[in-house]
Formats: sequence, C-alpha cells, structure tokens
Amino acid sequence: MTAYTEMGLEEIRELHSELEHKYSEYRALGLKLNMARGKPSPEQLELSLPMLDIINSTSELVSVDGTDCRNYGVLAGIPEARALIAEMVHARPEQVVVCGASSLNVMFDTISRAWSFGVGGHAPWSEQDEVTFLCPSPGYDRHFAICEHFGIKMLPIEMDEDGPDVFQIKELVKDPKVKGIWCVPQYSNPTGCSYSDAVVRALASLKPAAPDFRIFWDNAYIVHHLNDASENQDHVLNMLDECEKAGNPDMVFEFCSTSKVTFPGAGIAAFASSETNVAEALDAMKAQTIGFDKINQLRHVRFLKDAQGIAEHMSKHAALLRPRFEKVLEIFEEDLAGTGIGAWTHPQGGYFISFTGLEGTAKATVSKARMAGVTLTDAGATWPYHDDPHDADIRIAPSFPSVEELEQAARIFTVCARIAALEKIMLHS
Amino acid sequence: MTAYTEMGLEEIRELHSELEHKYSEYRALGLKLNMARGKPSPEQLELSLPMLDIINSTSELVSVDGTDCRNYGVLAGIPEARALIAEMVHARPEQVVVCGASSLNVMFDTISRAWSFGVGGHAPWSEQDEVTFLCPSPGYDRHFAICEHFGIKMLPIEMDEDGPDVFQIKELVKDPKVKGIWCVPQYSNPTGCSYSDAVVRALASLKPAAPDFRIFWDNAYIVHHLNDASENQDHVLNMLDECEKAGNPDMVFEFCSTSKVTFPGAGIAAFASSETNVAEALDAMKAQTIGFDKINQLRHVRFLKDAQGIAEHMSKHAALLRPRFEKVLEIFEEDLAGTGIGAWTHPQGGYFISFTGLEGTAKATVSKARMAGVTLTDAGATWPYHDDPHDADIRIAPSFPSVEELEQAARIFTVCARIAALEKIMLHS
Repeated sequence: MTAYTEMGLEEIRELHSELEHKYSEYRALGLKLNMARGKPSPEQLELSLPMLDIINSTSELVSVDGTDCRNYGVLAGIPEARALIAEMVHARPEQVVVCGASSLNVMFDTISRAWSFGVGGHAPWSEQDEVTFLCPSPGYDRHFAICEHFGIKMLPIEMDEDGPDVFQIKELVKDPKVKGIWCVPQYSNPTGCSYSDAVVRALASLKPAAPDFRIFWDNAYIVHHLNDASENQDHVLNMLDECEKAGNPDMVFEFCSTSKVTFPGAGIAAFASSETNVAEALDAMKAQTIGFDKINQLRHVRFLKDAQGIAEHMSKHAALLRPRFEKVLEIFEEDLAGTGIGAWTHPQGGYFISFTGLEGTAKATVSKARMAGVTLTDAGATWPYHDDPHDADIRIAPSFPSVEELEQAARIFTVCARIAALEKIMLHS
Repeated sequence: MTAYTEMGLEEIRELHSELEHKYSEYRALGLKLNMARGKPSPEQLELSLPMLDIINSTSELVSVDGTDCRNYGVLAGIPEARALIAEMVHARPEQVVVCGASSLNVMFDTISRAWSFGVGGHAPWSEQDEVTFLCPSPGYDRHFAICEHFGIKMLPIEMDEDGPDVFQIKELVKDPKVKGIWCVPQYSNPTGCSYSDAVVRALASLKPAAPDFRIFWDNAYIVHHLNDASENQDHVLNMLDECEKAGNPDMVFEFCSTSKVTFPGAGIAAFASSETNVAEALDAMKAQTIGFDKINQLRHVRFLKDAQGIAEHMSKHAALLRPRFEKVLEIFEEDLAGTGIGAWTHPQGGYFISFTGLEGTAKATVSKARMAGVTLTDAGATWPYHDDPHDADIRIAPSFPSVEELEQAARIFTVCARIAALEKIMLHS
C-alpha cells in the first residue's frame, strides 16, 4: 500500500471519495457501538458469578483471627484479605489495607488526606504554594480528573514503550512543588506498555526535592495478562521492594483492586505501602470509617483463594479478551498498515489499545466515528486538562463489545481515521 | 431507700464497705463483659442471614433501569435502592444518594468536601478563619472525632429530653464561624431521646449568619424502635420537609444506613438532601469514584423490599433488643432508685441508655467497672474533646451481650456507680 503522505492529490481525492462512500454506508446502518470505557464484557462478568454462591446464609462468616465479619470493626481489612491482596501485588500483608470496592476512591482519599493533612508529617498540600503532579501521557483520565478537582497542576511526561521518560522526571522532581507522579506501571492505561526494570529502578531511586513526594503506583492491571504464563506476559518489578532497596521506603503509594478480576464496583480495592505510610493512613482513616465490607472481603478470599487461584481466573478473562484485541489489531493491520497515517500499540495485557494518528486528526476521527454510531473515549481525554498537544492519541477499549461488534466498530474507526488523515493531508498540500 | 446524700457518715461507711465487699466478689469472678459499643448481637445478625441467599449466581443482576449491577456505573445508586432509602427516611428518591457501607464514611466525606471545596459555592472551610460546630452533648463520639480530625472547634450544647437547647443554638448561629451542628434526632446517641416537633421546627427555621451552615442530621436510628407500632414509638418530623417549609431547603445534610438493619459494615449507607445539594455532592463525588457496590444495593432492596419490609425486619431486632434494655433498666431501678446518685434514660429505641451520675463520678465508675471486667464507653467520650464538664455521663450499650451477661454487667455497674458516689460524698462531707 502506498503511504498516504506520498500519494498525489488526485489519488488522495479518489481514495477520500471512496472512503466517504463507505462511511455513509456505515452511517446508514444506524449502529450503536461503544469502545470508550474499559468495561469487562457480560461474558467476563459471568466468570465471577460462582463467587455469589460462596457466601450464603449457612456460611461461617468468621475471619481467621476470629472476627465476626457480619459486625463492626477491622479497619485495615480481615487478615486473609490483606494476605490475598499482598500475594497479588507481591507485598507483605502488613503493607496492605483492604478498603471498599473502588481503587479510584482509595486514590482520591489518599490525595484528599494529603491535601487536608499533609504527607509524612509535612504541611497539608492545600497550604503549600502550589502542588504539581507529573503525568505520563497519554494516561488515565480519572487520575487527571482527581488532580483537576483539587487544583493540582499537571505536567505531561512523555511515554515511551518502556515507561515514562525518566530523564525528564529526574529534572522535574528537583522542584519542591512536584509532589507526585501518576503511574500505571503494567499494561499502562492507555498505551498497554509496561515499565522496564530500568525505568522502575530509576523511579525508585529518585531524589525529589519535596520530602512529601510520592509515586502513585496504580497497579490496576497487575494480573491482567492477555496471554498465558508460558507466553508473552509482562511482569513489572515490585515497586515497594525497589523503593526499599533504593533507600526510599516511604516513596510509593500503591493501589489495586479486583474490579476487573471479579465485579467492577463490587470488588475489593486496596492500598499498599510501607508500614510507616500504612500506619499514617490508618490513623487518618479511623476518623473516616469503622471498617470496610468484610463480608465482601471474605467472599473474594474464598472465591479467588490465592495467587494461583487469581491466575487461573484471569486466564479465563484472557480467553475472552484476547480475540477482541486480536480482531481490532487484525483490522488495523488490514486497513492501516503501510498508510503511514497512524501507529498503534500491541499490548500483552490490560484493557486498551492506544492509537496515534497524524497530528491534528484525533478529534476529527472521534467525532466522525460518533456520528456513525461508534463511541470512543474523547480525543484528548488521556491528557492532562484534556489537552493532547498533538491532537493525535485515541484510546481504544475493545473489552466490552462482542467480536462481531468490534469488527464493525474497528472498520468504522479505520475509515474515520483515514478520512481525517486524508483531509489533513489535503489541507496542507 | 434513703437517698445517699441524706445518709449520715456512719451509714455511708457501712454501705460503702458492704458494696466494696460485693465488688471484690464480682472481681474474683474474672468476668469479661462489654457494654461499650452499639454493636448488634450475634442473634440480631442472624436475622439478616437470609439476605445472603437473595443474590446468587442465578440471580438477574439488572436494576429497574436496565443497568447491569455487576459492571461499572451509576454514581448515585440504582433507582430501587434510592427509592428504598427514600422510603426509609421519608425523602424523595431524587434527594437520595446511596453510597458504600458506612454512613460515618459518608459524613466524613461530606465534611472533607466542605473542608477542601466549600459548601454551596462558598469558600472552603479550610480557608475560613475558624470553623465551629455545635455539638449537642452528650453525643456521638465519632461525630466529634471527625471534627477533631479536621480541627473544627466544637461547642457543647445542652441536651434536654426533647432535643438540644434551641435558644442556645439560635444565639450561637449568629456567629458566621458556626458552620454546622451534629444531630442524632431520633433515639439520640447516647441519651435515646427524640427531638420534639417544636425542636425540629426551630432548627429548620434557624437563620444562621453563615450561608454555608448545615445541619448534619444523622438519622442513624430512624427505624430502630424498641416497641411495636401499636405501642410507644418516636417519630421525628422529616427535617428535609421542615427545612423546605421554613425556606431553608438546602440547610440539612441527612445521613442514614442499614448498618443496624442488616450488617454493620456490610450494609448500605446514604446521603439525603435537597436536589441542589445532591447535585453539588455528586459533582464532587464523580472525581472520587465511578460508583458504589450495586450488587449489595440490589441484595438489600430484594431482601428489605420496602418500608413495610423494613418495619417487619426491625420488629425482629426489637424483640431481641427489648429484653436487654429492660434487664438493664430493671437492675438500675432495683439498685439505684431512691439513692439520688444518678438518673438514666428510658429510650423507646436506638442503641443506648445514658446514665448521669453524681458530678465527678463517671471516670471513677468506668475505671472501677473495667477492673471488674466490665468495659464501658470511656467516661467523657460522649463529649467534645472527651471533656464532660461534670464528669457525670456514662453511655451504656446493652445490645451486644446476652441478657444473662447484661444482668451481671449491670449489677457490677450499679455497685461501681454507688461506690464512686459514696466516695464522692465522703470526700465532701
């Protein structure tokens, strides 16, 4: 295939008209497809239905330490739930606090505590001059939304295939206003890339000017491989350990949940950090609640059992997700390879494919797709302040639709991306 | 019985020695009894076990609006859960946001939002000169702990049998620093009193100087009657309505939960307020979470069904709680009536009996009881800053122990209270 940028104007016009024709045919179908959010499909949700039978009226609802899980208490989570999450994120149980159902809520609360009360005994962020966060971009829109909510200034950091640009980060943390960095280290949202050992170690060894600087390590996809263990799986280094080794034991706040293991919004979420940080968090949390849902913790422990149980369960998710990712990648390859108008990631896990189109085409592509009934994440959403400086990145979420729907949605997407690219090229020729 | 204050010294000494003898006998038993926290008993928890069968792997987990409750979404709660809670607190469903499992957490978050972002478009409380809360006392220790955590100044307000002293409140809200008042309007914690219609209406018609003043209406015991509907039940006026009628529609934040209906820590909690306040809360909450546990919401709705279902379920709780309250009151009556050394409340609902001893005897009583194996709520805990100015109030929580245990615990309590009173009298004679 000739690269579009090397085509003559006549050829471009012809192709554009041909694609516009295809586009209007798709539009006429009146489809309603959604590739916007990282939602598990109904088939994935069915995998966890047996969990709802694990706890019933005849179950013994007592935790290993004798706690009646039906009653008040146990702020940090029941011991077996702390142990399960610890296994999942390779932490020690004492480093884990098991909270409610949403890791986003745990992250929000962590920022909120820092905002109102400070971190590590330092002044509340709300009382400090200006608070800045480093935001590897494209990144997770809801991380950025928390920062925007608190008026935390965000600086985008370039994302490479092995993680964020650590040279840039090392420079920026010399500014004491820089208090944090958002990281999705494994199967990053949205690029799907995983941080290399070198990047993890460089981050763990940062010497930030701010003593209350923290790495917000959102390990959302730590067990969310698309392939079996024998094949390609990414395994990012344990940041808790690396920070400890680098003499920065308190520098990381880790977050995770079972939202995409069992049920989104009805799973268990957790916070993992040094024991010092855990003690500080618990001390504040005791004013907030008496304890989180221990029955749901027990339900999860008895269903997932241990790391092996989680891995087996996740391979069932993978079996449902893999063909979806493959279908989208197959169509991208068929329709876009050689066109020179876009690149896309080939993740080994997580929930997203990231598409980078020609500069200045993302908004047009997303809007065109929407008019043909295909909802995509807003262009720009994966950048701080919704501002993609190149207007190029589009997040593709292939998990929810069926393979048949994805085939249509991906076809429509490539038509839209190609039309947007051709129009861009025409405009500049 | 002769009032202790009217006894001669000799008589006092004799009685004291007799009670000390009894006390040492109790101590020798090496008991371990707890009347400290408002925890449901295991028998009460069993009442809700059938709820755990309501949702299983074969259940249709779809809400009335078609939402798949196993997946992400629906920040304000599924419609049927909002409707159930609305029925429970006599609100409109649009006035209700159903959150996670802990109403304490909802209250904390509400204060936290006010602290960081302000209320009703006004400046964040953290940026205002000083924030003061009015605290009807004795009151709920965890309310006061939230204020202490945020550095909110607390002013105790006198509690009468029909609620807090509204004359005092009317005066104090003329100060624009006064931003809130904590109320447990029905079967108050710990006195068990319920606010009269006059008190509710006076509060609803307050004209506070601070435009961001709010009544924190913790309706923790709204359906927690000890008697059947045909007998003595308190029914406090609907504060949402009263505020609306008084032209203060946005002045109340109401909270409730099913912690003492189904399972403490694994129930559903909610926020109810004007639609304006609900919209403001939801706007902030959308940065915090994608949504709360909808499966647990569905479980509760299908188990409790409606107001009638809640009432029937609560009457089973009442049947277990009533003999416990009666036993404690019976022993107080037997041991303390006529002694003139204490008064106690006779609540028609809720979780507590409040004992008011002679001035300067509460700490001594609690400490003496603890040495004999009876744990009580710390003296002073029910007052702001743990400072009971009269050192007189003790909160008695009769819900958790068995009737037999309560009999022993109450006997030990009255012995300790009498010894403390006699020692106080001797000291001053």
